[in-house]
Amino acid sequence: MTEAPLAYGVFSVAGGAHRIGVRSGDDLVDVTGVHDLLATGSLTPLLAAGFEAWEETRSLVEAFTQAGPDPGRITPAHSATMHLPFAVGDYVDFYSSLHHATNVGRLFRPDSEPLTPNWRHMPIGYHGRAGTVVVDGTPIRRPVGQRGPGDFGPSRKLDFELEVGFVTGQGPRLGSPIPVAEAERYIFGLMVVNDWSARDLQSWEYQPLGPFLGKSFATSISPWVVPLKALDDRRIEAVGQNPPPLPYLLPPGRGLDLDLEVTINGKAVTGSNTNHLYWTMSQQLAHATSNGASIRAGDLFASGTISGPTPDSLGCLLEITANGQNGEYLQDGDTVVVASSVLGSCSGTVVASRPT
Amino acid sequence: MTEAPLAYGVFSVAGGAHRIGVRSGDDLVDVTGVHDLLATGSLTPLLAAGFEAWEETRSLVEAFTQAGPDPGRITPAHSATMHLPFAVGDYVDFYSSLHHATNVGRLFRPDSEPLTPNWRHMPIGYHGRAGTVVVDGTPIRRPVGQRGPGDFGPSRKLDFELEVGFVTGQGPRLGSPIPVAEAERYIFGLMVVNDWSARDLQSWEYQPLGPFLGKSFATSISPWVVPLKALDDRRIEAVGQNPPPLPYLLPPGRGLDLDLEVTINGKAVTGSNTNHLYWTMSQQLAHATSNGASIRAGDLFASGTISGPTPDSLGCLLEITANGQNGEYLQDGDTVVVASSVLGSCSGTVVASRPT
Repeated sequence: MTEAPLAYGVFSVAGGAHRIGVRSGDDLVDVTGVHDLLATGSLTPLLAAGFEAWEETRSLVEAFTQAGPDPGRITPAHSATMHLPFAVGDYVDFYSSLHHATNVGRLFRPDSEPLTPNWRHMPIGYHGRAGTVVVDGTPIRRPVGQRGPGDFGPSRKLDFELEVGFVTGQGPRLGSPIPVAEAERYIFGLMVVNDWSARDLQSWEYQPLGPFLGKSFATSISPWVVPLKALDDRRIEAVGQNPPPLPYLLPPGRGLDLDLEVTINGKAVTGSNTNHLYWTMSQQLAHATSNGASIRAGDLFASGTISGPTPDSLGCLLEITANGQNGEYLQDGDTVVVASSVLGSCSGTVVASRPT
Repeated sequence: MTEAPLAYGVFSVAGGAHRIGVRSGDDLVDVTGVHDLLATGSLTPLLAAGFEAWEETRSLVEAFTQAGPDPGRITPAHSATMHLPFAVGDYVDFYSSLHHATNVGRLFRPDSEPLTPNWRHMPIGYHGRAGTVVVDGTPIRRPVGQRGPGDFGPSRKLDFELEVGFVTGQGPRLGSPIPVAEAERYIFGLMVVNDWSARDLQSWEYQPLGPFLGKSFATSISPWVVPLKALDDRRIEAVGQNPPPLPYLLPPGRGLDLDLEVTINGKAVTGSNTNHLYWTMSQQLAHATSNGASIRAGDLFASGTISGPTPDSLGCLLEITANGQNGEYLQDGDTVVVASSVLGSCSGTVVASRPT
């Protein structure tokens, strides 16, 4: 395991102003003002400034922390409160794990081919709710909704989803796709994502327009954004794709080797790795803009649940329990932590639904 | 026909600052500064201030315009440039017209029941791309994408969708649904929406997670936001719903009587009315927050395509041409105007796709 890479976050101490920090072991270093773009208590201005500015800022920040900052700049991480690190623009969730898509298809549509015919041709995805993206530690209220025809109440099938996500800078103007070979210039950095899901609401509502209330109640992200450029030693060759994708998705770009594990109430439940993803981030971003759609600083693109091929590498309880047949969904009071040794961790505790 | 109701917009003259205006016949009246909330060249602060502030502002603005404003405050509408009137938070598109959903189901899934089993139980909807919502007059570049397996190129089935939308204020905190009886306190006002769609991209991509690139390239809105409270004389009883909805969707709230028509290159193509909507705005907002999802000032909720029961009241070319069998989709150079005599109009001209 290598040393933890640079990671930016937004923190406050004792109710004070939001400041920008970077991780340093068990501490965080206040880097507010180290560059003009690190001034407002949000990463949004940095995100908006683009690739060259990201590199310049990273050099300055790395030099600043290596020089041994003033002790007044150092705060024990446990005494800081972390905040949402940037204003989320649009939130897209992909579905880029072959094993996950296959397993879900089998469970939700047992009478059909598990993988829809389009799946190997494009990174399937959909838009989620940006306004309900919350930071690590935010309590997750159990959603209420339609569990089937005429059946309204608290979800009985509350689930986590083990994911990673990337946040972008400002893209070219509307109508101008981002070529796959240039996509990484628009990807600022990565974080861990837990796309909480209510499987009973989702399975009743999702035809024909996709998931809506089964997902929109909350999505958690880890508080530290790790610049993609700081992950060079975690890059791997992309997996082989069959059939070969269309030219606008080639070359595929590189994959990532990032371990992830999930605990519930401190007990290990499952583990996976971003190397199980079929589609790369470059392909995801090239696809999402291939129709001319624009991106803004702060747009969040998540991988979709990442499942591996083995029973101990499934990325959600829907798969682990075979939709509740071999185990239980989340209970009130459960604390779910999705963690990567490189990116950091993302925690959320389920609280009981409001009375209906 | 009644007099045109109050409508707010954001305009500039000759490249000057963005200011807030209201319509007055062929002119617009600059109301910037008439209330503290009308100061920044965006409606967002007003949206964020909530229901009581909306009413107070409306009274002040109506008194101001009726008093005969200073001539320096009056600009001929044709000499002003209109801008996106507020920062769009999340964008949700519903599917609330029974005739439209039935017609589309028949065309996209000819071997199944046209209406999915959930449709009469809840206002089906999905999240669209907020970052590509554009104002009236913005050119629409023909999207490129996968028209089927291995087939990549400019969409051959570019369509309009006749819709209306409402914009909200800030809602209660995450985890707190908006009761259907209180929903209208969170609805600031309405505008015309054209949810441009590429039917070939959409039909190949939309299983199982819903529309994505077939819709995300652009959504146009009219520049004037008409406060819901200024539409009292257009309110009508909601349509009967069978089966009766669950209690959280009752009482249904009121509907609206707003005519809409579409022209292509000045020629009338179709006409419809919001009185064809099965689900009310109150039901849409109560449903969208029933799982605890929060809303922000500037969230946009569109009705979905509004089709009536007759061949001359279909809301998109997919239905009008039976997916291209009885006529053509949009051509490069076509100017589509979706107009309401009450809300205003929303125009867009199709420009050729980029070379691929």
